[in-house]
Formats: sequence, structure tokens, C-alpha cells
Amino acid sequence: MRVGVDVGGTKVLGVLIDEAAGGAPVVLGRIRLDSLPGAAGVTGQVVAAVQGLCSSAGVPVHQLSGVGVGIPGVVDPDRGTVSHAVNLGLVETIDLGGILAAELGVPVRLENDLNAAAVGAAALLGLARRDLVLLALGTGMAAGLLLDGRLRRGAGGAAGEIGHVTYRADGPLCACGQRGCLESFASGRALEAAWLGRPADAAERREGPAPAKVVAAAQDGEPWAVAVHETFVDAVATAVRVLVLTCDPEHVVLGGGVAGLGEALLGPVREALVRQTEDSPFLRSLRIPERLALVPPGSEPAAVGAALAVPHPEHQEVLWRS
Amino acid sequence: MRVGVDVGGTKVLGVLIDEAAGGAPVVLGRIRLDSLPGAAGVTGQVVAAVQGLCSSAGVPVHQLSGVGVGIPGVVDPDRGTVSHAVNLGLVETIDLGGILAAELGVPVRLENDLNAAAVGAAALLGLARRDLVLLALGTGMAAGLLLDGRLRRGAGGAAGEIGHVTYRADGPLCACGQRGCLESFASGRALEAAWLGRPADAAERREGPAPAKVVAAAQDGEPWAVAVHETFVDAVATAVRVLVLTCDPEHVVLGGGVAGLGEALLGPVREALVRQTEDSPFLRSLRIPERLALVPPGSEPAAVGAALAVPHPEHQEVLWRS
Ligand SMILES: [Zn+2]
Ligand SMILES: [Zn+2]
Repeated sequence: MRVGVDVGGTKVLGVLIDEAAGGAPVVLGRIRLDSLPGAAGVTGQVVAAVQGLCSSAGVPVHQLSGVGVGIPGVVDPDRGTVSHAVNLGLVETIDLGGILAAELGVPVRLENDLNAAAVGAAALLGLARRDLVLLALGTGMAAGLLLDGRLRRGAGGAAGEIGHVTYRADGPLCACGQRGCLESFASGRALEAAWLGRPADAAERREGPAPAKVVAAAQDGEPWAVAVHETFVDAVATAVRVLVLTCDPEHVVLGGGVAGLGEALLGPVREALVRQTEDSPFLRSLRIPERLALVPPGSEPAAVGAALAVPHPEHQEVLWRS
Repeated sequence: MRVGVDVGGTKVLGVLIDEAAGGAPVVLGRIRLDSLPGAAGVTGQVVAAVQGLCSSAGVPVHQLSGVGVGIPGVVDPDRGTVSHAVNLGLVETIDLGGILAAELGVPVRLENDLNAAAVGAAALLGLARRDLVLLALGTGMAAGLLLDGRLRRGAGGAAGEIGHVTYRADGPLCACGQRGCLESFASGRALEAAWLGRPADAAERREGPAPAKVVAAAQDGEPWAVAVHETFVDAVATAVRVLVLTCDPEHVVLGGGVAGLGEALLGPVREALVRQTEDSPFLRSLRIPERLALVPPGSEPAAVGAALAVPHPEHQEVLWRS
């Protein structure tokens, strides 16, 4: 057995998964903790997640074949270091892999969270060919690239930063310093801002997180929400199109918090892709709408992928290794 | 010794290169023939190029360790087939590799011409890390991707089709059926069209191909040419930025016919990238202008890369293999 932990800005998600090779990974246990900032906070919550999962399952920690950790930031998996994890209050580069391995007494592998999610999504969806981009619509928009079965980490920390491709040159200022980035229109933060800035006469009685509220208002035909939703969907579809015209992945899998919308996200984005490509025989031949998929609802792709990224002590070749 | 042949829509370019492993490839001979259409035309000119190179050098064809062919279209290098090579008058899928191997009596390897050019550019530039995108500004705009030392061919024939990413949604109709594609502004065809459509009072006395004429007119301050050139340069820089924010290559190498402009292309594009990124600490941190390079002037990257793609009979690992 092995553990995968997805360390996010607000929560730490752990899964205990079965070692069995082949087929979809079997999740034996789940844990969810609040995030705590800084090196001590991150380390402490990962250790707590591992211990919590093991004690629930009655498995001693030292019997795990390893622990994988998915974490936002620039990760060097071979050195076990993470840098620029600003959301977690980690300013400096830290040897998180080494610290965790010493505390837990088992092998620890670090991976960027989006890369881990791409690996996890391929496994959870049972894709025959591990060739996909995981397009995460979370607070922002970014992608994990698993191409020809290998993670494309990139030469300079920018692989998958599709959220900062310009969508409307006259759009709002993005945190990155540019104007009109895709993520200013197509992200959880964008929908949150639209909900907070809704007209005074908008219906107040909505439930769930901001994306669900905006979608519900759009479905009810409230004009402000219809406009926000149309732009959101068009921007997501544009991101998919740009990813296909550069990296040409077999699958584009929508993930991140906004993917909790499920079919209410997938359907409109697929329709937008049909519209965006119907006038172009070239684009039609690329079958872009058919490449679109969604991470399985309620699954933990980043935690599962992080677990799979740990080299197996015996049969490394049958589990994931990049 | 081995031969590489770059089959284009107007010319067939062959190089004879030295087998010696390590260091930049040594070009021992060059040949240039006109292209002839159809399967018989393509096959005949490749054979003629190989025979011409060998007889100039006094080397029997059967002593070559192999022949590599770079060709526009969808290539299956393992099967030796090419499809959709519409520019060459090849409508059906043909087993060009098999036909050529039978005629020449030596191993033949086919590769997409842009992929071959990426491999060739890495070798000619002596890049320590084979991690680059070759952005070809030819008749159109398209890219070859050599990432982590491997060609990224893509899952559906769209890898590197950056020329059909939208630049201005209200722009002119592209051959692909979309409006305002990058290649409608940043390609040889775009500059050709701008030159042909120049105002009646534009200076007539210009020399060289259309791109050089437009650049010369822009340098002379003719307003129509300044506007065309500014948009052209901005669109090339946008393509570079999108490639970095998706694939994150260590180098972006400008190639194709328009790259014959040399420093007159590289300088303005680099300046545009500085301008496009200066307001964004995030983009500045990616050092995009520093990633930019140019194919060596007068070199034949696609022919050289095609030659390098032939597996070496003895020391495969030291020459190129993807
Ligand atoms: Zn941005
Ligand atoms: Zn186009």
C-alpha cells in the first residue's frame, strides 16, 4: 500500500491506495485536513494525513511502500525540493521530500500538483494511451501535461501556464501583470468575482459555491449571469483549442474545483468547441470536442497521481514512472 | 556517410553529411533541385538528389548508412508512410519510405519536415539541451516540437499548429476556415499579400523576396509597411509567448523562409517580446526574449535533421534517435 497527499492552499487531501498493478487504482481510505501555512504547517499536515490514513486502516506507516506528495509550486522530483509555493506560505526552496522521508521513515516522492493530477486522471479514467492535458479550473487556470506517457515539466517553470495566455487584450488586469488573461474569465476566482459583483436586483437565493450559483442564475436566464457564463465557457473552450494546436493531446481532461459542476461544465464547453470549430474543415478534422473529458466526480486525481508517482520497490515498470 | 533530403513544395534540398558522432554535423555536399508533383515526381527527385550528392562526392549510394527524408504532411516514421502532403500533390497515403528504400538499396527514414528541422536546428546550433520549438515562418506558420530530447508528434496531427491559433477574431479569413489566425499576419504569405496590396504611391524599387521588401519599406518609414511590419512582429512574438506558456521549451528557434531576414527578424521580435512581457513580473521571470534564436543563416536544418533521424547501424545511441 501507498499514500498520496494533495497539498492545497485550503485543504490537504490524502488517499491510501492499493498496490495492485494494472487496472484503475483502488482507493482504500481518504482523509481531509485543513492546510496550515509554512514549512512546519505543510510538513505537519502531510505527516498527520499519512498517520491518520494508516491508523484508520490498521497499517503501520513503515509498511507503506512510499508516500507521494502533490504540491503547487516548482518541484524538482529528483531532489525532492519545492520552490515558489507562495500559496502555502513557502517562500524559500525547501527539501520537503527529505524532511518527510526522515519523519515518516518511508520513500517520499514530490510532484507538482497539476502533474500529479494528470497522472491520476489518466489512471482513474483508465485511459489506454497516457496522452492528456489536465486543464485545472481552480482558483486560477493551469494545466498538467502528460504527453506520450511522460510528464512534460518544461524548461523554465512555465509548462501548462495556459491561464496567462491573452484572451482579450483590453480585459481586466491579471495578478500576473498582463491584461485579459484566460484565467481572468475562466477560473473559480473569475466566477467568484462575477457573483460578488452581480447586480443589486439579482436573485439572492442560490446555493453552493460561486460557480454553481452563477451557472444556476444563467440557467434561469438572468442576463448578467448568461453573459458571464457565455464568456467563461468560450474562454475554457479557447484554452482547449490552444492546447490542441500546440501540444495535440489525445485527451483534454477538465479538473480543479470548478469541474465539480460536472456535466453543467462539460456540456456547454463541448458545445462551444463545436461552434468554434464548425466553420473550419481543418479544426473539425482534429475532433477537438471528442477529446474532452472530466475527472471522475468526487475523485482525488492529484492525491492518487502523487501516490502513483512513487516508484514501486518491486515492479516499477507496471506502476507509474516518468 | 548519410544523406538527408528536405522535400518542399518548390524545391528539394539534399545534404551529404559525415557520420562522425558528437559535435555539430559536418555537411560534405549540398544539392538543390526543383520539386516535381505526385508520387513519381517526389520519388524521382529524392533519388536524383541522393545520386547527385553521391556522384559529386565519389561515394557509391550503397555505401551510405541511410537516407533521411523530411516531408510536409502527416508522417508515420515507423511505417515510412506520408499522408495529407497536399502541397506535393500527394493526395493518398503512400509508402514513400518503402519505395525509396527499394530504389536506393539503403535504409530510409521519413520524418515530418518541421520535426526534422527541429532536430537539425538543435544539432546545428549545438544546443546542450535538446529542448526547443522550431517556429517555422514559411508560406504559413507552424512549429516542430523537440521536448526533453524527444519529438512530440502529437496524438492527432495538430502538434505545433500554432499558426491557426486566433490572433484577431475580426481578422481576415484563413485557408483553415477560421478568422484572424496568427499565420494570416505572421508568415511569408502574409507579407507577400501585403507587398502585392501596397499603396499605389509606395516606392517600387525594392529587391529580394516579399518579406525583405516589406522590411526595407518599413525601415524607410513608409507608413503602410511600418503598420504591416509591426503587426507581423507582434504576431510572431505572440506565437512565441503562447508556445512558452504551453510547452515551455528552453529555446524557440525561428526558421523557415522568412528567417532568411536574419537579424532583421530576430531583433524586432526580441524587442516585441521585451515589450509584451515588461509589465508582468511573472512573464519577465520566464526570460522569454532570451529563449529566442535563429536557424544558422544558409543552413539546411530540415535536411540535416532528416539525415540525423536515420538510425546509425553501429552507434545508434550517439546520433539522433527519437
Ligand atoms: Zn495572467
Ligand atoms: Zn487558420
